[in-house]
Formats: sequence, C-alpha cells, structure tokens
Amino acid sequence: MDPQEKKVALRAITYGLYVMTATDGETYAAGGVNWLTQSSFDPPLVTAAVKVDSGLDSVIEATGKFAVNVLADDQLDIGKAFFRSTTREDDRLNGHRFEGGAVTGAPVLDEAPYWFECTVRDTVKGGDHVVFVAEVVNAGVRDAARPPLNLRSTGMNYGG
Amino acid sequence: MDPQEKKVALRAITYGLYVMTATDGETYAAGGVNWLTQSSFDPPLVTAAVKVDSGLDSVIEATGKFAVNVLADDQLDIGKAFFRSTTREDDRLNGHRFEGGAVTGAPVLDEAPYWFECTVRDTVKGGDHVVFVAEVVNAGVRDAARPPLNLRSTGMNYGG
Repeated sequence: MDPQEKKVALRAITYGLYVMTATDGETYAAGGVNWLTQSSFDPPLVTAAVKVDSGLDSVIEATGKFAVNVLADDQLDIGKAFFRSTTREDDRLNGHRFEGGAVTGAPVLDEAPYWFECTVRDTVKGGDHVVFVAEVVNAGVRDAARPPLNLRSTGMNYGG
Repeated sequence: MDPQEKKVALRAITYGLYVMTATDGETYAAGGVNWLTQSSFDPPLVTAAVKVDSGLDSVIEATGKFAVNVLADDQLDIGKAFFRSTTREDDRLNGHRFEGGAVTGAPVLDEAPYWFECTVRDTVKGGDHVVFVAEVVNAGVRDAARPPLNLRSTGMNYGG
C-alpha cells in the first residue's frame, strides 16, 4: 500500500466537526472531534473514535457517558477552542457556556445548534483511538435552520 | 427524549456517500452506505455500520473483507444504483465496471475517484446495523481533484 495514496483516499471521507464532552465529578474533559457516525436507528447508536489516553478518553472510559455538540458552519472558532486542553471556569468550558446534560451530566454547550447525550455500550481498542459504540439517550435542537459545519469547507482535515 | 429532536439532531451529522462491496467466491454484495468514519491513524482503521443481515453484512461477516468506493460530488447516480439489490453481469456490478481488489478481492469500481480495501478486526453487534472496525490494507486514488460527495447536498439523508 502506497502511504500517500492511503492518506489521500482516507481524507476523501466526509466529516462534520463536533465538540465531545464528558465529566467525572469535578473533572471535565472535552475535545474537537470529527470521527463520528450514527451506527443504528433502533436502538439509536452512534460510534465515535477518541484519541487513546486523552483526557476525553479517560473520562469516557471511567464514566461510560459523553455528549456530542454539533457545530454549525459558522462555528469553526468553537471547534478550535476545543483543540486545546480543557479548562473550566464556572459555567464555561474553554470559554464557552455549558450546562450539564439532564441524563448524563456531560456538558452541553449553549451555542451548539444540535446536541445529544450518549451512554457507552461497547468499547473497541487496538488503534491509536478508542472506538465507542454508544446509545443516544437524550437529544436537543436549538436551531434547526443552521447548517452543520462540513470540515472540508474549512481547509482543515483530521484523517489519512 | 423527544423522538423528533433526536431525529433532527442525529441528521445534523455530516456524511459522504460510499459504495461498500464484498465478495465470497461467486457471491457479490454491495450497498450505498454513509455510516463510515476513520477510527485510527496507526494502524489505519476505519469503522463502518452495515444493515444487519443484509447481503453486504453476510458476506463481510463470512469473509472479513470489504472495499469502500468513495463517490465524487457528481456521482449520486452511482450511489443510487447501489441502493438496490446487487446484480453482477461479467465485470459489472449494478451496471458499473469493477475489478477485484488486489489484496482482498472485494470489488473496486473503475469510476470511484478514491477507494480502499479493508480487513475486519472487530465486529460489534447490538443495533440494527453491524459495526465493523477494519484495517485499511490497500488504497488508491484515481483523481485527487474530484471533491467527494457531501450527502447533505443531495437532499437525501440516512440517519435520525
């Protein structure tokens, strides 16, 4: 396999951009992620891959819970804020207001037009990211008119 | 959880469109799928969800091998050809020319600008789709200038 062909082919996969969050007591973890897909209608499952041994991975593995905040096409700045390490000040995570999700407690960002809370059903290891297969247990829409961000449109990519 | 909010929130996930293929001797299976993401850089892994007990699921579970053909933004017609049941005539699958992938034998479509072959490492069941975590073992690019299709741009969706 030619590594360059592999890189270009895998970067042809289409992604959005999401802020995944989790909390374990006073510990908060969050990250900008794009390796996410739905994986079942009934039960509603999503599958996400999170960098192994990251803060986000650690908290999700400890609690079995996370939230996904879907970013709109004009919210790349929010995604970028979560490419850095996670800091919480009062009701703000990396500078953005949140509330704990009603079902999981995982942070839901006020600015996210779409969000959902998840509980982990299966965890697959073996790569440099951990694959979580998780049930969607709560969801909300703040503004259904806002188009989600297509990562390719930003010129950034994470894949290859 | 409000089912309508759940549906709208999950449809905010961004997808491409891919033709997944597999073969087991003279049996060929293929389908238009969008629930696909990369899930590791090293080793290179992808994760895809395939409708449980579909022909594609059956052949992938039997062989542990599949190929992913990435469709370009002007190739929705090819994707639609694979929403139907699979028929092979000579070197054509649902009307589109293919060759067997060099590593897995899974059909690679001549028209796909990007493609990769995969071998399954882990299988997760429990929903109405089977989740395959698979290693990318071969990949190719025929035209890196062609933008991949964003499913949302077609007005179609599969999710919610």
